[in-house]
Amino acid sequence: MRLITLTPDSCTLTSATAMPRASGFLWNCKMMLHATCRGFVTAQHMQPEPAKYSHAPVVEGKTFMLPETAHYAHHPGRFVYVRDLVSQRHFSVPHEPVRRAPKAFTFTQHPERLEWSVEQDDLDIRWSLVLPVDEAVELWRLEIRNRLDIERALRIVPYFSVGYMSWMNQGARFNADLNAVIASSVTAYQKIDDYFKNHHLKDKTFLTCDRLPDAFETRREDFEGEGGLSDPDMLRAGLAGGEALYETPAAVLQFDQTLEANETQVWHFVFGPAFDEAEVACLKAAYLGPEAFERVCGEARAYVEQGRGVLAIETPDTHFDAFMNRWLARQVYYHGDTNRLTTDPQTRNYLQDALGMVFVRPQSARESLLYALSKQNADGSMPDGIKLYDGAQFSYINQVPHTDHCVWLFILLEAYLDETDDYAVLDAEVDGQGVRARLEAALRWLLKTRDHRRLSYIDQGDWNDPMNMVGWKGKGVSGWLTLAVAYALRLWVRLSGETQPWAAEAEAMNAAMNTHLWDGDWFGRGITDDDVAFGIRRDPEGRLYLNPQSFALLSGAASEAQAERMVQAVAAELETPYGVEMLGPPYTKMREDVGRLTQKSPGVAENGSVYNHAAAFYIYSLTQVKKGEKAFELMRKMLAGVDESDYVQRGQFPVFIPNYYRGDFHAHPRTAGRSSQLFNTGTVAWVYRSLIEGLFGLKGTREGLSVQPCLPAHWTEARATRQFRGSTYHVTYRRGGTPGLTLNGRPVVGNVLTLPEQPGVFEVEVGLQ
Amino acid sequence: MRLITLTPDSCTLTSATAMPRASGFLWNCKMMLHATCRGFVTAQHMQPEPAKYSHAPVVEGKTFMLPETAHYAHHPGRFVYVRDLVSQRHFSVPHEPVRRAPKAFTFTQHPERLEWSVEQDDLDIRWSLVLPVDEAVELWRLEIRNRLDIERALRIVPYFSVGYMSWMNQGARFNADLNAVIASSVTAYQKIDDYFKNHHLKDKTFLTCDRLPDAFETRREDFEGEGGLSDPDMLRAGLAGGEALYETPAAVLQFDQTLEANETQVWHFVFGPAFDEAEVACLKAAYLGPEAFERVCGEARAYVEQGRGVLAIETPDTHFDAFMNRWLARQVYYHGDTNRLTTDPQTRNYLQDALGMVFVRPQSARESLLYALSKQNADGSMPDGIKLYDGAQFSYINQVPHTDHCVWLFILLEAYLDETDDYAVLDAEVDGQGVRARLEAALRWLLKTRDHRRLSYIDQGDWNDPMNMVGWKGKGVSGWLTLAVAYALRLWVRLSGETQPWAAEAEAMNAAMNTHLWDGDWFGRGITDDDVAFGIRRDPEGRLYLNPQSFALLSGAASEAQAERMVQAVAAELETPYGVEMLGPPYTKMREDVGRLTQKSPGVAENGSVYNHAAAFYIYSLTQVKKGEKAFELMRKMLAGVDESDYVQRGQFPVFIPNYYRGDFHAHPRTAGRSSQLFNTGTVAWVYRSLIEGLFGLKGTREGLSVQPCLPAHWTEARATRQFRGSTYHVTYRRGGTPGLTLNGRPVVGNVLTLPEQPGVFEVEVGLQ
Repeated sequence: MRLITLTPDSCTLTSATAMPRASGFLWNCKMMLHATCRGFVTAQHMQPEPAKYSHAPVVEGKTFMLPETAHYAHHPGRFVYVRDLVSQRHFSVPHEPVRRAPKAFTFTQHPERLEWSVEQDDLDIRWSLVLPVDEAVELWRLEIRNRLDIERALRIVPYFSVGYMSWMNQGARFNADLNAVIASSVTAYQKIDDYFKNHHLKDKTFLTCDRLPDAFETRREDFEGEGGLSDPDMLRAGLAGGEALYETPAAVLQFDQTLEANETQVWHFVFGPAFDEAEVACLKAAYLGPEAFERVCGEARAYVEQGRGVLAIETPDTHFDAFMNRWLARQVYYHGDTNRLTTDPQTRNYLQDALGMVFVRPQSARESLLYALSKQNADGSMPDGIKLYDGAQFSYINQVPHTDHCVWLFILLEAYLDETDDYAVLDAEVDGQGVRARLEAALRWLLKTRDHRRLSYIDQGDWNDPMNMVGWKGKGVSGWLTLAVAYALRLWVRLSGETQPWAAEAEAMNAAMNTHLWDGDWFGRGITDDDVAFGIRRDPEGRLYLNPQSFALLSGAASEAQAERMVQAVAAELETPYGVEMLGPPYTKMREDVGRLTQKSPGVAENGSVYNHAAAFYIYSLTQVKKGEKAFELMRKMLAGVDESDYVQRGQFPVFIPNYYRGDFHAHPRTAGRSSQLFNTGTVAWVYRSLIEGLFGLKGTREGLSVQPCLPAHWTEARATRQFRGSTYHVTYRRGGTPGLTLNGRPVVGNVLTLPEQPGVFEVEVGLQ
Repeated sequence: MRLITLTPDSCTLTSATAMPRASGFLWNCKMMLHATCRGFVTAQHMQPEPAKYSHAPVVEGKTFMLPETAHYAHHPGRFVYVRDLVSQRHFSVPHEPVRRAPKAFTFTQHPERLEWSVEQDDLDIRWSLVLPVDEAVELWRLEIRNRLDIERALRIVPYFSVGYMSWMNQGARFNADLNAVIASSVTAYQKIDDYFKNHHLKDKTFLTCDRLPDAFETRREDFEGEGGLSDPDMLRAGLAGGEALYETPAAVLQFDQTLEANETQVWHFVFGPAFDEAEVACLKAAYLGPEAFERVCGEARAYVEQGRGVLAIETPDTHFDAFMNRWLARQVYYHGDTNRLTTDPQTRNYLQDALGMVFVRPQSARESLLYALSKQNADGSMPDGIKLYDGAQFSYINQVPHTDHCVWLFILLEAYLDETDDYAVLDAEVDGQGVRARLEAALRWLLKTRDHRRLSYIDQGDWNDPMNMVGWKGKGVSGWLTLAVAYALRLWVRLSGETQPWAAEAEAMNAAMNTHLWDGDWFGRGITDDDVAFGIRRDPEGRLYLNPQSFALLSGAASEAQAERMVQAVAAELETPYGVEMLGPPYTKMREDVGRLTQKSPGVAENGSVYNHAAAFYIYSLTQVKKGEKAFELMRKMLAGVDESDYVQRGQFPVFIPNYYRGDFHAHPRTAGRSSQLFNTGTVAWVYRSLIEGLFGLKGTREGLSVQPCLPAHWTEARATRQFRGSTYHVTYRRGGTPGLTLNGRPVVGNVLTLPEQPGVFEVEVGLQ
């Protein structure tokens, strides 16, 4: 049996142990849920700040979503114990916490739901989860089928973690009227102001079922007894029905159920946060039961379908197709439609997530651009984060000044204008100031924050957050940012039609980079406060950084000869079987003039990892210089799955691209490639753009759809369906036949399909050499 | 077999399951360690802010020490797996994580060390821990004896939790030169300032042994495999020796050891935090091995002995004697010598912990008084916390303004002057201002912060921290604080010899209380911003508060008749088998004019719990009105142990008094009495003072030692040895014989033993009716 099967409609894993961290995710506008194949679940909802309703067993630190989460016995999860009352044996679904090896196991991510199936002890069990499109609540379905021709006596015990809610007040009881375990708490606070802030919080967690349980328990420790989570005392003895009084709550129900020969029984559950019991009653009425479950599946499916994007491909690589046609667009849509369920996204993330939406729902991208500009500072700079509601607070990283945020306005703008031709946006007004004026103010701020060499100050960081000590004294500069500013300037020249002073400044900055940071085979990363260039050949660690090379290809700083050397250097020093590392060799100790980056674990996060966001930008830049072969190779590595052992090494389940794979490949091959499991990443917008505009070369222009592909040479034929400004283009790429372009069978001069008078469906043939 | 045996030299528990949370603690000037009988350990060291080196499996929230910690499989601990290589069976010591029921078990708190002994599978295992007196490091000894007359082949696997160290950098490896597992991390930070702050942090955790292991492992998850912590895969297969690369570290060693018939083998371990490997080497040299272990035991014992205090008693209640003669003084000493290992103790805690030191090392109490005064504000008020070093930050609760801190200066002063007669302290200067002037400034501030009725404003809280909405608008008053101020004024009149205006103000405040808050049978707790009296008869919840009654007895506000009614009301409404509740009935829902208190879980923390600090003050006030019978009764309830089932109900191990026992006795008898397990509490200074000055009536005066006991009537004889101003008094109390007092056989007129010309040893006889 295959370990992993990927189709556009589902991705299935057939082992809970081969890739124990393999995970999928669901979301809606109010919550996000991340589940491992073994049944551990991390969920957060927005009220409006992110909060949890199923907690760890200790007071958790507030932090961003962490990579490579290590699971442990009491990690929050959603489990069902099944005990055969005759044989006295038990197991649990999906796999935790009992961990008995099943006879058969599948974990399936559908676009809109998660599903586990387990065969064990002659039972078939299906355990399914779906989220409504606009409510923070989990809908679960449990189906148990008796495979035998005899009657079975079973004890079915769903166990939903609640965990440590609050040191101030916590508890749980069974509410018979609602047929629900309701855990209650008071979010801890000490200052009066916080009382008023916390007033509206949903401090309850509930579990309700469409069938009456035979017993229940609300106290975690009492449920477990000496047997612990893997062999709970009460599973044997029966649930005791206790009320949790300041004791760690759990929501546990017991159904002692006889199953006739071959009979199937079904249960539905709703689990989630609530403000009060009245809300539990409402949620129960809206979401509990078989009809509600089916209805929500349909609604959730329809919601995800809205994020199908503008491209469908058919290539010799069906695995690639399945991922790109469904899962990549799904991840792009998740980012753009929810802003990662944060309330103060970093400005660069916000703008790049919007860039993904250019290809999904361009109106959203336009709104995001204008909303971001509404937060612009008076001096033209952009804030470090975009507060999405009044009263949002800047989280920790957004309290640290970074200098790159303005750049991303132009990168988003280019993608948006090329795709939509909505140049009217430049004449829009935001809070009394025109977009054009605002964008030029941003450019002027970027020009102002340069040193005498015309290199851009880095302050406490640029795109690379943790590079926080290069320029904190006010003198250090960023080579990458200098190139990015030059790129932004050139974009503005093209998009605005205004040449000066922007074009000259771009040229000057590219020249400055060549003067001060060209290191023979690549561009250096920057120059510190103390005038020390870094990211250069003589550095034993961190000698080659990927980002400056990518942007040198885009900004025009690199000549063709330089480009060749850079690409070769990257191949030699940064490419690994798992993709291209962000920098190399990774830092193994603090370098005080670079900063926090160098204290990160080598090979993880940005420090020498295969940081997919950077890798995706490199891929994009390669497509811009028509190095499609290499771009495809790196894109393919990013998806993993060349063979199944590759997935196993990475622990990666191909329903999303993680923010990084472990790097440090040469020093630590054991861990290299391992997935961070984090699905929040600016990567996906760029992979999608690289695929559409780069590899398949279907990019918008003022005149129409430009067709300039750079497909890998070994693809003799490929097809793409591109939605563009209301029309559908069915494009067939063939290698080796007649070169050139035809539209509905007629040859096209040049490589632009000019806009039709009426939108329609068109057949396009592309002959490749 | 007895479940618990208490002596002055040890306290032993013979079951790991009867009282699973039973816990003991060790400390030194740099760290504190709290261990449960089952082997879970919470340790923190000061650098100088509290930090951990053995962590939970997730990023923990920074918070104060929490009550009633719920343990879970991966709670940090120190365990030893023992696997018989022939029978293939395994167990773990002390009890977690395998939890196999042992043949015999003991957990023993000695004053200076902890020791577990387990008999299982024909092995005797002893597992012992001691801390050096001035280093943050744990010294462990493992002794295994083969009880059989045949050779045994064993696999011994000590497992020390390291846990999730940092999202920024973590890992572990075995350093063969040091024979140590060394886990490394970088404390996570994002701001540059924090880099410099974190510079000196001990970010490593190490485990070293005086014997060479056969194998090791540093990766928690790999060690466990599918078997989990209770049946780790590697215990069977042998440890694989991996390096942890950003994986959750653990320190695990493997010793495959043959034990001859009846042979004993011994291992020593050192575990703790370190800055670098050089420090590991130093700590290893200083503390590893049998000699070091024995030496440290001796030094630690000598250190604890310095805290023996000034009283040794011999009564018909030997359990009471054992606790009071050793364990209470030990806990008093812990508080006073370490300030609870905080860096910004709340001012009232700091002053009361110093009050305990009056009876242990009076010089420290003097220093604390003067140090506290050095932090006095210009307006005479005291800050909410006392910063113990430059750069200490006010923790959360100390950012909330409370109005009672000044009061405790006078309460400490009284105890200090009575014990030492060091009235010269009043003439000392603190930062250019005399102590007398500072104290009067404090009084004036207290007088200034009263309303027109002469009732004291409560602001956002008084002694009762979470009563934060009574007076946040600036009008609400505290009945308790009014009485406490009156008490402080009267103390000052007595101690300073200055009568006015203080005596008149005290009288006026007592009168104001009687006018505005006498409720017929007791004093009310306060009046809110909106002029609503509370803590009164008509309140359905929180109708009777203990603290105002205690202080009314001390301040003189209560007439004798009122005192009788109050004591009766307290007995009727607040006394429970587990002591006297702080208020009753507990609040079950928010009362917005009282505040956070009412949102606390009913029966825990202050909300209707047996809050021992308040109970101790009540006991003290009872002794001041010579209600010794009731005082003793409540003191005895505070210690628990009337019979063993009482300990079991409370889960309390009699080596410390916890800050609270669960209350809400009438509504929730199941959980009532349960110990918070927190040994940080202002309780102990007051119990000690009540014992010395109250029950045994051996209180200092200007002339000498006053003898005015109020022992329980059923004690026909009791003895006490009292150290006082350099002399030793052996006091024998006898009931029923000749009343009166003799010194070395000679009758004494009055009840004061005037100071001898030379300190000496004196025999005192007290005849009681």
